[in-house]
Amino acid sequence: MLTKMPENSKLQTPISKLLIANRGEIALRIMRSAKEMGIKTVAVFSEADRNALHVRYADEAICIGPAPSNQSYLVGEKIIDACKLTGAEAIHPGYGFLSENAGFAQMVADAGLILVGPSPQAMETMGNKLSAKAAALKYNIPMVPGTEEAIQDVNDAKQRAINVGFPILIKAAAGGGGKGMRIVERAEDFEEQMQLAVSEATSAFGDGAVFIERYVTSPRHIEIQVLGDTHGNIVHLFERECSVQRRHQKVVEEAPSAVLTEEIRQKMGKCAVDVARSVNYTGAGTVEFILDENLDFFFLEMNTRLQVEHPVTELITGVDLVKEQIKIASGEKLSFNQDDLKIIGHAIELRVYAEDPANNFLPDIGTLHTYITPKGTGVRVDDGFEQGMEIPIYYDPMIAKLITFGKDREEAIARMVRAIEEYDITGIETTLGFGKFVMQHEAFKTGKFDTHFVGKYFTAESLKKQDGTETLIAALIAAKLFEKKEVKLERSAVKNSSNWRKNRLKY
Amino acid sequence: MLTKMPENSKLQTPISKLLIANRGEIALRIMRSAKEMGIKTVAVFSEADRNALHVRYADEAICIGPAPSNQSYLVGEKIIDACKLTGAEAIHPGYGFLSENAGFAQMVADAGLILVGPSPQAMETMGNKLSAKAAALKYNIPMVPGTEEAIQDVNDAKQRAINVGFPILIKAAAGGGGKGMRIVERAEDFEEQMQLAVSEATSAFGDGAVFIERYVTSPRHIEIQVLGDTHGNIVHLFERECSVQRRHQKVVEEAPSAVLTEEIRQKMGKCAVDVARSVNYTGAGTVEFILDENLDFFFLEMNTRLQVEHPVTELITGVDLVKEQIKIASGEKLSFNQDDLKIIGHAIELRVYAEDPANNFLPDIGTLHTYITPKGTGVRVDDGFEQGMEIPIYYDPMIAKLITFGKDREEAIARMVRAIEEYDITGIETTLGFGKFVMQHEAFKTGKFDTHFVGKYFTAESLKKQDGTETLIAALIAAKLFEKKEVKLERSAVKNSSNWRKNRLKY
Repeated sequence: MLTKMPENSKLQTPISKLLIANRGEIALRIMRSAKEMGIKTVAVFSEADRNALHVRYADEAICIGPAPSNQSYLVGEKIIDACKLTGAEAIHPGYGFLSENAGFAQMVADAGLILVGPSPQAMETMGNKLSAKAAALKYNIPMVPGTEEAIQDVNDAKQRAINVGFPILIKAAAGGGGKGMRIVERAEDFEEQMQLAVSEATSAFGDGAVFIERYVTSPRHIEIQVLGDTHGNIVHLFERECSVQRRHQKVVEEAPSAVLTEEIRQKMGKCAVDVARSVNYTGAGTVEFILDENLDFFFLEMNTRLQVEHPVTELITGVDLVKEQIKIASGEKLSFNQDDLKIIGHAIELRVYAEDPANNFLPDIGTLHTYITPKGTGVRVDDGFEQGMEIPIYYDPMIAKLITFGKDREEAIARMVRAIEEYDITGIETTLGFGKFVMQHEAFKTGKFDTHFVGKYFTAESLKKQDGTETLIAALIAAKLFEKKEVKLERSAVKNSSNWRKNRLKY
Repeated sequence: MLTKMPENSKLQTPISKLLIANRGEIALRIMRSAKEMGIKTVAVFSEADRNALHVRYADEAICIGPAPSNQSYLVGEKIIDACKLTGAEAIHPGYGFLSENAGFAQMVADAGLILVGPSPQAMETMGNKLSAKAAALKYNIPMVPGTEEAIQDVNDAKQRAINVGFPILIKAAAGGGGKGMRIVERAEDFEEQMQLAVSEATSAFGDGAVFIERYVTSPRHIEIQVLGDTHGNIVHLFERECSVQRRHQKVVEEAPSAVLTEEIRQKMGKCAVDVARSVNYTGAGTVEFILDENLDFFFLEMNTRLQVEHPVTELITGVDLVKEQIKIASGEKLSFNQDDLKIIGHAIELRVYAEDPANNFLPDIGTLHTYITPKGTGVRVDDGFEQGMEIPIYYDPMIAKLITFGKDREEAIARMVRAIEEYDITGIETTLGFGKFVMQHEAFKTGKFDTHFVGKYFTAESLKKQDGTETLIAALIAAKLFEKKEVKLERSAVKNSSNWRKNRLKY
């Protein structure tokens, strides 16, 4: 939490109108902060988003083309033209779409506009794994032990694997999506697995070269939020733990991590600031690390944009990250330093996706017949939908982010369960029930989990068991008369289910 | 903000089921905390509240009679019978209704049930102005200078008035509602005004005796939240300022006050703890003070219950007051002491009433045709309604409490304006527009206001002026073709009004 109140300094290059080159919850979230700063907002939208909330919330809205992103949200020229048409001086790209596109960042600069984000150079360096590693190595940031360049010779590879220590991971240099990837537990299995990896990589990517690195058996995904201004000041805002993932995508995030010691937190924070410094980073960025079972951590990559899960950091630090991004983009100095920042409380985010956890988390597109969000202290919902709307098939199927904040992890978890039970969505399968499963699972509650959480513990059966506990709490009992006092008391059935708002009394 | 994490100690007398003897937003708010603590909840409801949200939210619900409160929510016997029927071990009275009724508190104790509140003795002492003052005087708590007993003799009275110092207030000892009340600016006017006051008091109450006290020209209403456990520990959770009132009722509250110095805050806090100690106070309570233009403060009264405006304290301290109330009622020791408590950030509450500010704040009962609440970081809405519901005529016409939290007062105000603009209520007049007027008024923004704020600055015209500024921001401009790039951009009209969700695009 910010312990020093930031000075309310003036923006150096005042932004009076901001175009948000995004859609859904993140567009709304950015507009809310802009509105609080007295900045006018311009929405852009595809034909599929004509009636989206972000379009209605903005002061102005510009249609930029058909639904497919490559004809609208991904077309840099249209975004820049929309700025010229409306007189917006700056563009906030949100996350996804053009947010990490160095070419777009350069195009924005060339058009004399301000991008709320880092320089094209910083984006470019961090956008490539090899140049990102090279930059980070200048500051001796720990990397997962392994080969630094791609190799193809089996004997050379085996010797290096022995040096790294088993278990090791063989992965295709040109790869992605798990293709050409092999975990090798023992040296005697190495040759066979290497040959399989090379042939897979060759047929998939036309390139048989592979990297070898230590395989972290029980990895946790920990990332550090950083903020850098254009005056050379960089601070970190502590960590977020994002180890609960399905299909290698985050679904539950929290801050702080249940497992970091203060000493490791400081070390990771310093490393993250150094990584940012290696590219003179400006704006909000995230340095991702993998943490192993010995609490050793290794640099993974840097995301040069606002993250989906930024709210958990906002709640434990009291910093509005979008406002800070805008202030930095307009040339303002950071109004706080590292010592002003303290962690207070605990925050957890659940991504509410339109997908069916019981069916392998497959997207479940449709109409939000009922859509009522939870309330009460410590509950924040960032969304971009309202009741009756359809989830468009063209975009990421995230409906909302449900975030809870409590004085400690236990309270944040209890509040998340309460909020999930209050959330009322019908017409579409969601990850809400899955989120409740996570919150109530012993491994999560005790903080003893890694990125294998879902694979290890979750099956379609898990949800059925959960439903079973949501029984009718009280049966409908006939009206009861207390003759003596002439007081008529009547007990009514109220079902304790996620659909509590529907529980109208039956007489 | 709690800087020390409370130990998660066990409840001494575990409460497994809690009956909430209230309705509306406060019933829901209490149930949310109970749910997070794993405590089952029982709602009681009048026939008018059959489909209220608090009834559906609870695990069980008991009808306790017809709509008028004196036939349902105010009938202690029915509440206690409902406990017996459902097996609830404890009762949370909320605010209003039976919450400060010492007789009811005694009845609960006699029935072997736990009241989430102070002892009947503490309620009784503080429920009477004279015994409350007498208790407070034992600790030398500052009182508004004046006569300690009722007097009727004009010459005696004048001499005392001169000793107190002008301006003074003459008020009927038996009075209330402003009857028999006179402000006297100068000694030479005293006799005439005293005679008028005495004759008014005699005809209104049959008793001409009056009190004389110093008239505070520019009073601010400041109150201190206290928590006392059953082990003799009492702490204060800083102040709330509630000076913005209409019809002598609070409508905007904030914490901390814009005007208190740290020194006065400490002094008031100590006084509040002493007042609580004078009656061995247990549970959550509020000690109200009047603050004059010299920042001298005087004891007014103690409210022996949870206040409507408690959320602003929760947000700046990180303490869930309802959970603390329940823990104290079950015999638990406070898990933090005074030094663990720190103010972080700033919180403001606007009471959203179903009333018409343009028409002297007259209640405006009806149906919530549209009811969509604001979201985003730092916004909390405590309410008990959903779209399509009616505001019943039988009860207080408060629809919701809109609370915003920011790193400082400026951010909390900007966030409140943003949230008010996002709040979408149709079918009923509300205090939302009035709230925006307050937030944007120079006197409020600079913190230079007192309880006369509404009378001094607000008229029906104030709202009209405000509407005038909400003009159509962008006109509907015909589709525009950028032939060179073959990019079709289209600007759409989006009106920046409080009804932004209705702004569907017109083509």
